[in-house]
Amino acid sequence: MTNITRRAALGGAAAATLAPYATTQFAHAAAPLIGKQAPSFYRYKIGDFEVTAISDGTTVTPRPDNYVLNASKDEVSALFAANHLPADKATHPYTPVVVNTGSKLVVIDTGTGEANFERSKGMSGQFHSNLKAAGIQPDQVDTVIISHFHGDHINGLLDKDNKLAFPKAEVLVPAPEWKYFMDDGEMSKQTTDRMKGVFSGLRRVFDALGRKVTQYEAGKEVVSGITPVATHGHTPGHMSFVIASGNNKVFVQSDVTNNPLFVRNPGFHLMFDQDPQAAEATRRKTYDMLVAEKMLVQGFHYPFPSLAYIEKSGSDYREVPVPWSPTI
Amino acid sequence: MTNITRRAALGGAAAATLAPYATTQFAHAAAPLIGKQAPSFYRYKIGDFEVTAISDGTTVTPRPDNYVLNASKDEVSALFAANHLPADKATHPYTPVVVNTGSKLVVIDTGTGEANFERSKGMSGQFHSNLKAAGIQPDQVDTVIISHFHGDHINGLLDKDNKLAFPKAEVLVPAPEWKYFMDDGEMSKQTTDRMKGVFSGLRRVFDALGRKVTQYEAGKEVVSGITPVATHGHTPGHMSFVIASGNNKVFVQSDVTNNPLFVRNPGFHLMFDQDPQAAEATRRKTYDMLVAEKMLVQGFHYPFPSLAYIEKSGSDYREVPVPWSPTI
Repeated sequence: MTNITRRAALGGAAAATLAPYATTQFAHAAAPLIGKQAPSFYRYKIGDFEVTAISDGTTVTPRPDNYVLNASKDEVSALFAANHLPADKATHPYTPVVVNTGSKLVVIDTGTGEANFERSKGMSGQFHSNLKAAGIQPDQVDTVIISHFHGDHINGLLDKDNKLAFPKAEVLVPAPEWKYFMDDGEMSKQTTDRMKGVFSGLRRVFDALGRKVTQYEAGKEVVSGITPVATHGHTPGHMSFVIASGNNKVFVQSDVTNNPLFVRNPGFHLMFDQDPQAAEATRRKTYDMLVAEKMLVQGFHYPFPSLAYIEKSGSDYREVPVPWSPTI
Repeated sequence: MTNITRRAALGGAAAATLAPYATTQFAHAAAPLIGKQAPSFYRYKIGDFEVTAISDGTTVTPRPDNYVLNASKDEVSALFAANHLPADKATHPYTPVVVNTGSKLVVIDTGTGEANFERSKGMSGQFHSNLKAAGIQPDQVDTVIISHFHGDHINGLLDKDNKLAFPKAEVLVPAPEWKYFMDDGEMSKQTTDRMKGVFSGLRRVFDALGRKVTQYEAGKEVVSGITPVATHGHTPGHMSFVIASGNNKVFVQSDVTNNPLFVRNPGFHLMFDQDPQAAEATRRKTYDMLVAEKMLVQGFHYPFPSLAYIEKSGSDYREVPVPWSPTI
């Protein structure tokens, strides 16, 4: 009853010569190609809360040789290839999250910035347009919570004219992150272009806000149902968040790992982890907790919709993407 | 530098009592909950072709004890639970595909039918609304290709008033499927309610079309770049499709497997496989081919967007979902 063969599966070109009628007999005017992706947002409930994961895009860029400090370029290339990703590139999705608690509309992290859309040829800087596609207007946002001060998390605080993207929102920043990065003494110690860029970039953004921010501490709810968790290492004041309503929870990890390669290889020291040892210790502790609690994780740098369960895999971990639900 | 603890991660309620200010100090009028999922479609290129995977929804329904003929209910329940799916339910996503070849706009399979939207409380019957959200009008469709005659593949040929959903389209059906299922002698042999329902259901649909269909054979292109492949077993005339343009290919498997549990357990005999032995042989042959060719597969019953690579895993297989690209 079965006659599939590789030749049958692949023999399209050969078969075409046998059945030329098929392409002409029922000719219509062709519908135009559309050339646009779906607006990349995904909505789900956590208890009474409505969570919307919103893509800012995915960049695919040349990968520096020292992308993973403690693994060779070839080893990392092989892993990317084995995971069906371009071997010599770095692939970085960006996924901010919006939480409507019923009394507060909260944005967690803001993406690479609308101004980046043109610069990246549309690869990133999509957060603000996808937010609107998701039915959310920027001036409805009550609170923006920033996890840490890297550009892909804070640049979206500004719109493409460098004005406040969320004009009515209170902006919450981690107190230890503010203390460290706003210290001009710390800035003066920096020796690498990348770190100098981080310091000057965040000053550009926060100066545009008149430095009008509210500092928050780990362990104290900042909005009812949203509790920051200290996950330092990636940056000195890096934070994650537990979003809890009813019996449901999701852990918004921010950059505890970058893309899932760093879930499966938690010992890898990514060049963007400011304190690689602390980042690895945080990563293992956090992922052990996620496994033990069977808690959903929303990973900023996971592929959209960036929502997964975590399983133990030997001494490492494996992410299991949540099956997309076409309803909420 | 790190002080995450399970207490910190989970202590939201306790922390709330320490920081009551946070929920009241910056009160705004709350933005309303939106309560709607993103329109579930996903677009990608295969060479010059534009492919759009379009969700018809996902049903979660009570699972019959004989869902897998050759495994116990408990074994199957344990597997569903281990895969983060409801243990005692059957979870079935449905994902028809649209291909714009540049000269033909082609729909492959049609979902459970718009009339099913209300009956399923919106869980399924979404294909036609998501199609429009994807920018495709039903009267633009030139060709509808049916893989096999189960209701979740053919019912969407009709709109909610039982009129032709694609009024200008030629409807292509597998010749061996037509021969078998339109044979009233075969119908009269059926002993189970399910199989009687399959025969009467497809008569209802094709009679509404005045039985005006074009039969196709495996191995002969039906539209330039789209070649049917005989993958019989699930039904007597079941077909899959290779979509090929330039150097790119995707294999539209239809029901060679149901959801990915049957990728990871290809020896499972699903109650809907009409000839379970043939279906398993087809499945293993097809998946060996997908692994050898590193060919993308579009799985009708995979979670949306239902697009994956296949890897060998012991004597079985594992699907690796393609990372969502926020651009095409």
